[in-house]
Amino acid sequence: MEFNFDEHPHKRLNILTGEWVMVSPHRTKRPWQGKVETVNNTPRPQYDASCYLCPGNTRSDGSVNPPYTGPYAFTNDFSSLLQDTPEGNVNKNNLLQATSERGICRVICFSPRHDLTLPQMEVKAIEAVITLWQTEFKDLSTSHSWIKHIQIFENKGDVMGCSNPHPHGQIWAQSSVPVEPAKEGVQFLKYYQENKKSLLSAYLEVELESQERMILENEHFVALVPFWAVWPYETMIISKRQVQNILEFTEVEKTALAEILKQLTIKYDNLFETSFPYSAGMHQAPVNDGDHPEWHWHMHFYPPLLRSATVKKFMVGYEMLANPQRDITPEQAAKKLRDLSLEHYLG
Amino acid sequence: MEFNFDEHPHKRLNILTGEWVMVSPHRTKRPWQGKVETVNNTPRPQYDASCYLCPGNTRSDGSVNPPYTGPYAFTNDFSSLLQDTPEGNVNKNNLLQATSERGICRVICFSPRHDLTLPQMEVKAIEAVITLWQTEFKDLSTSHSWIKHIQIFENKGDVMGCSNPHPHGQIWAQSSVPVEPAKEGVQFLKYYQENKKSLLSAYLEVELESQERMILENEHFVALVPFWAVWPYETMIISKRQVQNILEFTEVEKTALAEILKQLTIKYDNLFETSFPYSAGMHQAPVNDGDHPEWHWHMHFYPPLLRSATVKKFMVGYEMLANPQRDITPEQAAKKLRDLSLEHYLG
Ligand SMILES: O=P(O)(O)O[C@H]1O[C@H](CO)[C@@H](O)[C@H](O)[C@H]1O
Ligand SMILES: O=P(O)(O)O[C@H]1O[C@H](CO)[C@@H](O)[C@H](O)[C@H]1O
Repeated sequence: MEFNFDEHPHKRLNILTGEWVMVSPHRTKRPWQGKVETVNNTPRPQYDASCYLCPGNTRSDGSVNPPYTGPYAFTNDFSSLLQDTPEGNVNKNNLLQATSERGICRVICFSPRHDLTLPQMEVKAIEAVITLWQTEFKDLSTSHSWIKHIQIFENKGDVMGCSNPHPHGQIWAQSSVPVEPAKEGVQFLKYYQENKKSLLSAYLEVELESQERMILENEHFVALVPFWAVWPYETMIISKRQVQNILEFTEVEKTALAEILKQLTIKYDNLFETSFPYSAGMHQAPVNDGDHPEWHWHMHFYPPLLRSATVKKFMVGYEMLANPQRDITPEQAAKKLRDLSLEHYLG
Repeated sequence: MEFNFDEHPHKRLNILTGEWVMVSPHRTKRPWQGKVETVNNTPRPQYDASCYLCPGNTRSDGSVNPPYTGPYAFTNDFSSLLQDTPEGNVNKNNLLQATSERGICRVICFSPRHDLTLPQMEVKAIEAVITLWQTEFKDLSTSHSWIKHIQIFENKGDVMGCSNPHPHGQIWAQSSVPVEPAKEGVQFLKYYQENKKSLLSAYLEVELESQERMILENEHFVALVPFWAVWPYETMIISKRQVQNILEFTEVEKTALAEILKQLTIKYDNLFETSFPYSAGMHQAPVNDGDHPEWHWHMHFYPPLLRSATVKKFMVGYEMLANPQRDITPEQAAKKLRDLSLEHYLG
């Protein structure tokens, strides 16, 4: 018997974090008698009077949204991180260690339309979201020298803890670099010091040559299933040009990013003919921290669905206590996504 | 304004993994309009003819369960890890790295009774489960010298991906040490080398003195909310005596462990008056790998519920991409659990 990726249980290295992922290719054959999610596919109205994100509506803290017509940003009424947090530290024999953390949490409405999602928006409208991400990134980093990291992300779908279907994302900016980007920073730096080249540029070359995990490619971006993907249909968008953060993208690159975002999320919706839930977000170099020639902008998509619109992968027991584990191979997932149409199933 | 744990956003260090956790004490005030889980509190029969774990029933692979009367173990019909995996490695410029992994996955029925859960079982019956865990641990480690790590765990509740309510847990034994225990091993070793003492013994002293995060204590074990807990009501059971693995427990310690397991899970059920979902599991020293005087047996409980039987904490967007984050303080959670009755709410 020879070891075979497509058949035998194995581990793969996530080169961005330095951590291993378990792959059990044979495991999807198991019958599923567990939890089935409910899906709400009823169309939404363009405007919902009870939505706290729709233009003109009143939010729970009493403020009123302006009658916005493009993407719109405001500070989260229930921010996890606050700007006026006092400095403080606790250290009891190195066993209890705590340190205060300052931050700003922003909400980004992608569109005034309550009924849309990214795959249903025009490329031009997605471009406007990217422009707003840039404006926010710039404002947050230049007006607050204490901000060291800016996390841009979107939770989509109630299965991903999103409490409002109005298309929106979030930005959490804070005074230190959080765990996941910090791990990536270490790996980027190590590779750069040894190879004078970004880790993701080198990785991209391998993937472009192999084509096995590729989903989409345009002049400036690639969408693929990373070799070490954990979630069944996890993907990554990587910029072909190595940039440290979103501010460096040219107008042409912004259009290309909007295009690949639309195409990838259309494929996602088409996979199980449902509005596909995920958490997605960009990883970028720390801010107010000098130059980071090792960093390479990219965006992760972590979608929970495994078998259908209603059966997700549970990252529980073994995964929480021991090791992330997946049930289909990244190559199988990439092939499925690659083969899907670029026309949205709702037409 | 002075920095205050109970009020201000801060980070805490998980000394077992070396990673930080974000705490946002003020955040539970936010209204919740998102996903609400369904709860099935209808009592189950003692025997269910359609359950593939009940005594005498046929499983999906055709094998028949014996008419077992105590706890019962068998090899998972849909194991993630397989014993006859061939050796193999892939390495493409250090960018694509994979290596085959061998393992054995076991299912442990806690009781022949379909309607019970740990908090509803007699202490004697829980002791029998502990004895079976010991037997399994011993068999797996002594009959297979290639096994390096044994993960004993339980997924409870369909919200934790458990596909069968019959009380059961699992054991995944494998040829390498997975990510989470490996992180802990590094931290244990570092502390031991510097202090000639186990990290958790030192930590336990601090917690026993402070009492702030304590929930339960008997002669041999402590249940507490760790200072760095991520999940809202996350807890840990720690043995007072430093042992490397479950085989070292004496009969008296086994009884004490059964008692604290019953008491902790009763408190959990009482918290929201529901069969409390969680993933729980033990962390123990690697096996077939010499002596590990730095390791200290402990058991983690990761329960998802936050506000009620139907509203859980979502570890999504920011948490997946950036940093684990919690919404109430460990001290608040510990107080709630401490104050709950030791009588099960169902009587
Ligand atoms: O083996 P089970 O109980 O069918 O499966 C459950 O536990 C496993 C181990 O934590 C997970 O990998 C699965 O996603 C989960 O559904
Ligand atoms: O801020 P929201 O959208 O209400 O909340 C959601 O996203 C946050 C950031 O990922 C998470 O911490 C919450 O658990 C989740 O429900």
